[in-house]
Amino acid sequence: MRIEVINTGTEIMLGNVLNSHLGYLSNAIFPLGLRVQRQATVPDGDAIRDALVETFERADVVFVTGGLGPTTDDITREIVCELLGLTMQHDEEIWQAIMARFNRRGIPWNDRVKLQALHPAEARVLQNPHGTAPGLYFPPLPVPGTAMKSPHIFLLPGPPRELHPMVDNLVVPLMREIAPAAAAHELRSFRTTGLGESRVEELVGEPLLALGLEVGYCARPGEVDLRIIGAPAVLDQGEAVIRQKLGTFIFTTDTRPLEGIVVAALIAAKKTLALAESCTGGWIANKITNIAGASEIFLAGYVTYANAAKTRTLGVPAELIAEHGAVSEPVARAMAEGARAQSGADIAIATTGIAGPGGCSEEKPVGTVFNAIAVRDAETRVFKHLFPTDRETFKHLVAQTALDLVRRSVACAT
Amino acid sequence: MRIEVINTGTEIMLGNVLNSHLGYLSNAIFPLGLRVQRQATVPDGDAIRDALVETFERADVVFVTGGLGPTTDDITREIVCELLGLTMQHDEEIWQAIMARFNRRGIPWNDRVKLQALHPAEARVLQNPHGTAPGLYFPPLPVPGTAMKSPHIFLLPGPPRELHPMVDNLVVPLMREIAPAAAAHELRSFRTTGLGESRVEELVGEPLLALGLEVGYCARPGEVDLRIIGAPAVLDQGEAVIRQKLGTFIFTTDTRPLEGIVVAALIAAKKTLALAESCTGGWIANKITNIAGASEIFLAGYVTYANAAKTRTLGVPAELIAEHGAVSEPVARAMAEGARAQSGADIAIATTGIAGPGGCSEEKPVGTVFNAIAVRDAETRVFKHLFPTDRETFKHLVAQTALDLVRRSVACAT
Repeated sequence: MRIEVINTGTEIMLGNVLNSHLGYLSNAIFPLGLRVQRQATVPDGDAIRDALVETFERADVVFVTGGLGPTTDDITREIVCELLGLTMQHDEEIWQAIMARFNRRGIPWNDRVKLQALHPAEARVLQNPHGTAPGLYFPPLPVPGTAMKSPHIFLLPGPPRELHPMVDNLVVPLMREIAPAAAAHELRSFRTTGLGESRVEELVGEPLLALGLEVGYCARPGEVDLRIIGAPAVLDQGEAVIRQKLGTFIFTTDTRPLEGIVVAALIAAKKTLALAESCTGGWIANKITNIAGASEIFLAGYVTYANAAKTRTLGVPAELIAEHGAVSEPVARAMAEGARAQSGADIAIATTGIAGPGGCSEEKPVGTVFNAIAVRDAETRVFKHLFPTDRETFKHLVAQTALDLVRRSVACAT
Repeated sequence: MRIEVINTGTEIMLGNVLNSHLGYLSNAIFPLGLRVQRQATVPDGDAIRDALVETFERADVVFVTGGLGPTTDDITREIVCELLGLTMQHDEEIWQAIMARFNRRGIPWNDRVKLQALHPAEARVLQNPHGTAPGLYFPPLPVPGTAMKSPHIFLLPGPPRELHPMVDNLVVPLMREIAPAAAAHELRSFRTTGLGESRVEELVGEPLLALGLEVGYCARPGEVDLRIIGAPAVLDQGEAVIRQKLGTFIFTTDTRPLEGIVVAALIAAKKTLALAESCTGGWIANKITNIAGASEIFLAGYVTYANAAKTRTLGVPAELIAEHGAVSEPVARAMAEGARAQSGADIAIATTGIAGPGGCSEEKPVGTVFNAIAVRDAETRVFKHLFPTDRETFKHLVAQTALDLVRRSVACAT
């Protein structure tokens, strides 16, 4: 079953808004064994006609988002009716619902709003309790002037808060009827940190392909996602290969980021965390505090950018900094231990490095970093890395390696 | 000039990753008077062939992102060569750069990496200092078996940290050559903070349109960019309108982010900064430390997430927290003053708020935040806002308002 998505909207085209619709629809139909084969974005207005006509030749199902509203560039409904030779009719039930909505909010309405209550009798109305414009579902219909039938066409609202419940509550059940026998293919994914993309492929690529699995890689700074797609029995064999070869480099098989895993592990282990950040400049604290529930385990972060702050806030001896430099093994150690002492946390990590462009020496080139981890009743450990890259990627890479120290530390302790 | 974008990547198709490429490219070519007319996403692999062939009939310029890496699903280069009848050759210079990159990082490389050094003689190499795979530019070439020439084709890397600098430094200058007439119009942009998009439009929209200028708005959390396009003489009149109506809400007319303006202003004023972050969780420190030169002015950031940390690190009296709550005017004030005292900085800002989902009350709903600014020899000021939104947007909005306090404070003092 071939599925395509058409997103309409000048604001997406101009780059003002990220397109989250494709991801939402893909995730929603994936459990039915269905996948989107192609997606297109077109501006509001007539461009949607060309994009839609093209899908008639290729697709079994087309999801169109946007263009159902009351403004002059919202013409998706009209275009579909024109292509299929259908006539729009006023739907009093929809109109009453729209008016009730406006009245409830005390918003005045004008005649253009009434357009949203128009649809042809051939389309099924998809109720929209979160907005005024309902969605529409068109079953396959004869295309005038041709011998073919149209694909199943869904016209869906653009605002995510309207689209998401409509997809979950109405579109997915309809898709289950339309595609009852969709192939029982499954996907498993493995998120890893600590290995490069080509190293991951070297370790598992051949044996997975030999099993007949579809294999995909996605690399981001400091992590590589691995995905395998196939029949469940084969996936089990594939997973065994992956677990044997990648072992503890895998940090999760769901969609959580590394910091989500770290926060969950700390909550489960009832351990608290503090951070002493120099070169990462608050990036690790920010990642941790993006996770709901972080307040249970995160006590404090110290962004000790200046040397004086390392001394005043974390108690790093000024002589230590003078003797070894701020980017050094002893200073990283003292920062982590100072953060633990100052906050009273069970675990503290520290980062000190040279993000560049300035601040380097021959002995310590740009990208040099020391990560330290101090754990209650354990010896503090310090690790040196070299990440010669741009400033923001450097922060990412240092954060990943530092967070991974916490993950591995908590995993070992439990 | 018709421009299309093809994004390749199974991870985008499957909904694992949001597509930010279209927005980046659209914004980059907008100042040349160019716009993307259509965008398609296809999975890794052969689907890119069909998508590309279709654009040959319609487009003058095609940007393709992704599929240049070393893994088996990275076959964009091969497909373009096959379509245009070109032969790939080993490029020793690229290969040396790739090896140098691997050696610098001490990462072992394998034979697949070598594929990234292949390209046909007809393509121009776009250097990629932020990754291994270079981009490629194909000028219009005869399409075998047809009478037509191919569009200008750009093959660009998928990772944003590689794509963005390549677009800025190499693609935009090339596009200026390809579309010189389009660049005859001039663009001026104004970045504002503190006003909503519809308020900005209400203030300047009509008079600018009356001047015959093309007007564009781009809203992000906490800021609105305003762009006007037209002939220089008319732009002067438009700029006068904008400056009169928007005044100090404009923080820059270049592309620097607000934190870049704040760091530059502090450096110019020879003032130092400290941060006390609760609800922003290190996000402001991270923004500041993304700016090269931040170490000149940024002394320390305190991410005092737990109440105990507010007391231990910043000296906020425990009774004050008990009496007023951590999210309150007096605690914000004490945090800012504590951060200034602890760090010795000239200026300190503090944020304390309720990001949600938990922690709210009827009196203090989710989204409530207090920002404080403490300045040497001045009275500390506290501002209350309400940003009822998701966790990450909340952080953005609080950071913008807090940074703007610093910007306005330094601007007033100088």
